[in-house]
Amino acid sequence: MSDKETGDPHLHRLVLFSDAVFAIAITLLAIEIHPPEHWNGIGELFALMAPKLAAYAVSFAVIAIYWVSHRRTFTHLLRADFVLDILNFLMLGLLALLPLTTELLWENNGRGDAVLVYVGLVAVIGLAHGLTWAYAALLGGLVTPALSLATRLFILLRVALLPGLMCGLTIVSLA
Amino acid sequence: MSDKETGDPHLHRLVLFSDAVFAIAITLLAIEIHPPEHWNGIGELFALMAPKLAAYAVSFAVIAIYWVSHRRTFTHLLRADFVLDILNFLMLGLLALLPLTTELLWENNGRGDAVLVYVGLVAVIGLAHGLTWAYAALLGGLVTPALSLATRLFILLRVALLPGLMCGLTIVSLA
Amino acid sequence: MSDKETGDPHLHRLVLFSDAVFAIAITLLAIEIHPPEHWNGIGELFALMAPKLAAYAVSFAVIAIYWVSHRRTFTHLLRADFVLDILNFLMLGLLALLPLTTELLWENNGRGDAVLVYVGLVAVIGLAHGLTWAYAALLGGLVTPALSLATRLFILLRVALLPGLMCGLTIVSLA
Amino acid sequence: MSDKETGDPHLHRLVLFSDAVFAIAITLLAIEIHPPEHWNGIGELFALMAPKLAAYAVSFAVIAIYWVSHRRTFTHLLRADFVLDILNFLMLGLLALLPLTTELLWENNGRGDAVLVYVGLVAVIGLAHGLTWAYAALLGGLVTPALSLATRLFILLRVALLPGLMCGLTIVSLA
Repeated sequence: MSDKETGDPHLHRLVLFSDAVFAIAITLLAIEIHPPEHWNGIGELFALMAPKLAAYAVSFAVIAIYWVSHRRTFTHLLRADFVLDILNFLMLGLLALLPLTTELLWENNGRGDAVLVYVGLVAVIGLAHGLTWAYAALLGGLVTPALSLATRLFILLRVALLPGLMCGLTIVSLA
Repeated sequence: MSDKETGDPHLHRLVLFSDAVFAIAITLLAIEIHPPEHWNGIGELFALMAPKLAAYAVSFAVIAIYWVSHRRTFTHLLRADFVLDILNFLMLGLLALLPLTTELLWENNGRGDAVLVYVGLVAVIGLAHGLTWAYAALLGGLVTPALSLATRLFILLRVALLPGLMCGLTIVSLA
Repeated sequence: MSDKETGDPHLHRLVLFSDAVFAIAITLLAIEIHPPEHWNGIGELFALMAPKLAAYAVSFAVIAIYWVSHRRTFTHLLRADFVLDILNFLMLGLLALLPLTTELLWENNGRGDAVLVYVGLVAVIGLAHGLTWAYAALLGGLVTPALSLATRLFILLRVALLPGLMCGLTIVSLA
Repeated sequence: MSDKETGDPHLHRLVLFSDAVFAIAITLLAIEIHPPEHWNGIGELFALMAPKLAAYAVSFAVIAIYWVSHRRTFTHLLRADFVLDILNFLMLGLLALLPLTTELLWENNGRGDAVLVYVGLVAVIGLAHGLTWAYAALLGGLVTPALSLATRLFILLRVALLPGLMCGLTIVSLA
C-alpha cells in the first residue's frame, strides 16, 4: 500500500498539494464568521449565530466528505500525469469557492436561489472529481492494472453520480 | 517508530491533513488583530492591544497543547479507518472555530458568558479528541496490540477528562 | 525517481515549503470575493460576480501553471543550497502578491494599466522561476549530471522566456 | 542525512508543522494589503503602495531568513521532545505576529516607535529560536553527538545573538 502512494514523486506532490488546499479551504470557512456586536446571554448569542454556524457545519461536512472521497480514489493511483494535474486543479479551483458560497448561504438564510447556487457548486465539484477519476481509471491508465473495469465504473458512480443525484433531487424539490 | 506512522498511507494522509488544519488555525488567530488607529508611545500601544494579545496567547497555547496531545495519541495508531476520519474531522471542525471564539473573548473582555462560551468550546474539543481516541483504542482496534487496556484508559483520561475537568471548574467558579 | 526528490532533506523541505505557499496563495485568491448585498435571481448574481470570478479563474490557472512548471524543474534537482533557497523565496514572494493583484484586476475591470500591472507581475514571477532554474542547472550544479546542456537551456527557455514573451506581446498590444 | 530528519516521527511532524506555520505566515503578509481606490497611471499606483510593498518585502525577507536558519539548526537534530515542542511553539507564536506588526509598520510609515516595536519583535523571535537551539544542543541532548561543543555554541551565536545585535544597533540608532 505504502509503495503505491509514495512510489511516484509526481503523484506524491499532487496528493500533498491537494491536501493543503483541502485543509486551507476547510479552515477558511470560519474566517468570515464574526461574533455579533450586541448580545444578551449565551442563548441569544447562539440564536444570532445559528445561520452562520449551520452553514459552517454543512460546508465542513461537504469538504470532509470530498477529502475522504479524494483519498479513496487516489489510493488506487500508481502515478500522475499532466492531464490529471489539470483536472485535479479544476476540482480544487471549484472547492476553493466553497467559503464564498457558504457566505452566500448564510447571508440569504432560507432563500431558495442561494441554496440552489450552493447545491449547484457542490454538484459541480463532484462532477470535476468524477472527471478526474474517469480520466485516471479509463483513459490515462494511471491506476493499478489489478482493478477490474466493473470496480472502476462503480467508483466513478459513487464519486460523481451520487452527489450529482442528491443535488439534483434538492434542486427539483426546490423548484 | 517510523514504521508505525508511515506504514499506513491512509493514517499518514490523515496526520498530515490534521497538522495542516492545526497550523492554519493557529496562524489565523492573529489575522483579525489589527493595530489601533491612534496611539501615543509604545506603552499606550501595548495597553490598547493587551486584551487581544492576551486572548491570542491563551488560544495559541490551547492549540499547541491539543497538537502535542494529538501527536501523542496518534503515535500509538497503526492504521486509520472511515470512522476515525469522521471523529477526527469533528475535532478539527470544532478547533477551526477557535479563532472566531478568540475574537468573541477579546471583544467582550472580562465578560463572564463570553469566557464561558470560550471555555466550553475548549472542553468540547477535548471531548471530541477523547472520542477519537476511545474509538481508535477501544472499539476500532487501530492501535498497537502491545498497548495494555490500562494504558489505553489512562490516555483517554488524560486526553478528554483533564481538559474537561479544568473547564468544568472554571465554569463552576464563574457561576 | 523517488530517490531524487527525497534523497536530500534540504531539497525535500524546500519543495514542501514551496508547495504550501502555492496552496495557500491559490486558496486565498477567493478570500476577498464576497457575494453582492442585493441581487435578484441567479442570473443577476452571476452577472454581478462575473468580473471577480473571471479574475479568480485566470489567477487560479496562472498559479496552477506555475506549480506544474515548478514541479517539473525541481524533478531534475539532486539537492538544494542557500542560493537556491533565496531565488526560490524571491519567486514565492512575487507569487504571494497575486491575490492582491487579482483584486486590482477586478476592481479596475477592463482598465488597461491594471491589466498591465497584472501581466507584468506574472512575467516577473516567470523570470524569477527562470533565474532559479538557471542557477540550479548552469551555475550551482544542483541537477542530475545526466541532463545535457541542450535540455537545460531548453527548460530555461520554456520556464522563463515563454511566459515572458506572452506577457510582452500583451503589453505591446495594450500600448 | 535523510535518516536524521525522517528517523524520529516526532521530529518529522514538528518540522512539517513548523514549515506550515512559516508558509502561512509568509503568505498572510500580503493579505491586508489592498489596492488604493483611486489612482492615475502605474506611477501613482506604485507611489501609493510603496510603503506597504516595502514593509511586505522586509517581512518576507525576515521570515525567509528565519526559515533558512530554522532548517539549518534542525538538520543537526536527531529527535524531538516535549520541551523542544514548547520552545518551538513559543518561536512560532511570535512569528505569527509578524503580519500584524508589518501592518503596524506601514500604517505608521517612518514613525520611530512603530519601527522599534517591529525590530523588537524580530529580535525576540531570534531569541526564542536561540533558546530552542540552546535547549536542543546543550541541555536536551537532542543533536548528533558528533557535533562539538564549539560548533554548538557557534550556531547559538549565529542564531540568536547576530539578529539580536543587529536589532540592538537599530534601536540605539533610533534613540
